[in-house]
Amino acid sequence: MNKIITIGREFGSGGREVGKRLAQRLGIAYYDHEIIVELAKKTDLATDYVRQITERRPEPFFPITVGQSFYPVVNPILDLNNSIYVEQSNIITEMAKKSDCIIVGRCADYVLREMNPLRLFVYAEMDSKMARCRSRATEQEHLTEKELKQQIQKIDKNRSKYYQFYTGRTWGDKLNYDLCVNTSHISVKDAVDGIAKIFA
Amino acid sequence: MNKIITIGREFGSGGREVGKRLAQRLGIAYYDHEIIVELAKKTDLATDYVRQITERRPEPFFPITVGQSFYPVVNPILDLNNSIYVEQSNIITEMAKKSDCIIVGRCADYVLREMNPLRLFVYAEMDSKMARCRSRATEQEHLTEKELKQQIQKIDKNRSKYYQFYTGRTWGDKLNYDLCVNTSHISVKDAVDGIAKIFA
Repeated sequence: MNKIITIGREFGSGGREVGKRLAQRLGIAYYDHEIIVELAKKTDLATDYVRQITERRPEPFFPITVGQSFYPVVNPILDLNNSIYVEQSNIITEMAKKSDCIIVGRCADYVLREMNPLRLFVYAEMDSKMARCRSRATEQEHLTEKELKQQIQKIDKNRSKYYQFYTGRTWGDKLNYDLCVNTSHISVKDAVDGIAKIFA
Repeated sequence: MNKIITIGREFGSGGREVGKRLAQRLGIAYYDHEIIVELAKKTDLATDYVRQITERRPEPFFPITVGQSFYPVVNPILDLNNSIYVEQSNIITEMAKKSDCIIVGRCADYVLREMNPLRLFVYAEMDSKMARCRSRATEQEHLTEKELKQQIQKIDKNRSKYYQFYTGRTWGDKLNYDLCVNTSHISVKDAVDGIAKIFA
């Protein structure tokens, strides 16, 4: 069975950087945005639109616990999202079967749970996340401190809802991961050194 | 400034083993039980008694937020515990100033916060903790599964209360640590390899 690393990450914590550097170090495949591109090809939806959907928990128009008998008409938005999730999970599984790899986000830790991946979660203190966002600032350049903080919180709240919705688990709860790395005081380089050693 | 590693750990997670192996690997001092022995020498209390106290948050007879004016008599039990905590913190600080070292438990991450230690938390799933307890069984040998689980939960509850009482922080909250290691699926040896790399 291939060696798989899944990475959950708070926005601005450097999780993608950890993933990319780790993949480079270990010489294995790295999947993140690519999954969505692949997905978009299959569903004929624009990449950006798919990303927008997959970053957020679908918002059903009615509580999903309510019996269908009261709502015979299928909700098209919810169905679309669910089909994207299923399609995405299939692609993730295909990729994980193909070779050793690192997959960032997309509930991969849950999707691949029967393949026993090494499950990482990358997080950081708010100050540290804001500083990292500022240092790579593009879209966030014009935001005030307060707005930036709110944006980070909003993105993470969406990730949390999305994860909870599809896995029934709590996003960021350390029991769902093998290793949780706080990048506030440890550098990404040092974290990668350590994880590579554990993975080797 | 010396390099310090502090380790918080759930009972049965292998945290002490991580600490000992790591100290051996890095060739640095290891403190755990020793702190209490040292402490006991200074306060003329038996080692076992001190351990019992320091493993549990002191239970004040009245809410500590209540003004002293209503309770002019100082609570001897609470005072004893507090003086042990202060003494213990002094010893931890002395040890950390003396050389590179690893300190397990005793709120060392908080006590030494100005020395920027690498703060680890070692945890595991309940099944894994129970299995580890069974494998080293001595005192727990006669316990049923239910009793063993309850004992683990009780010890960790006391650790949690103790930590909360003296630091005002939540024990096991990943934001208080730089690295959280789940020993359910990662071996202690692999964890030590990784942490040693980060620390190097």
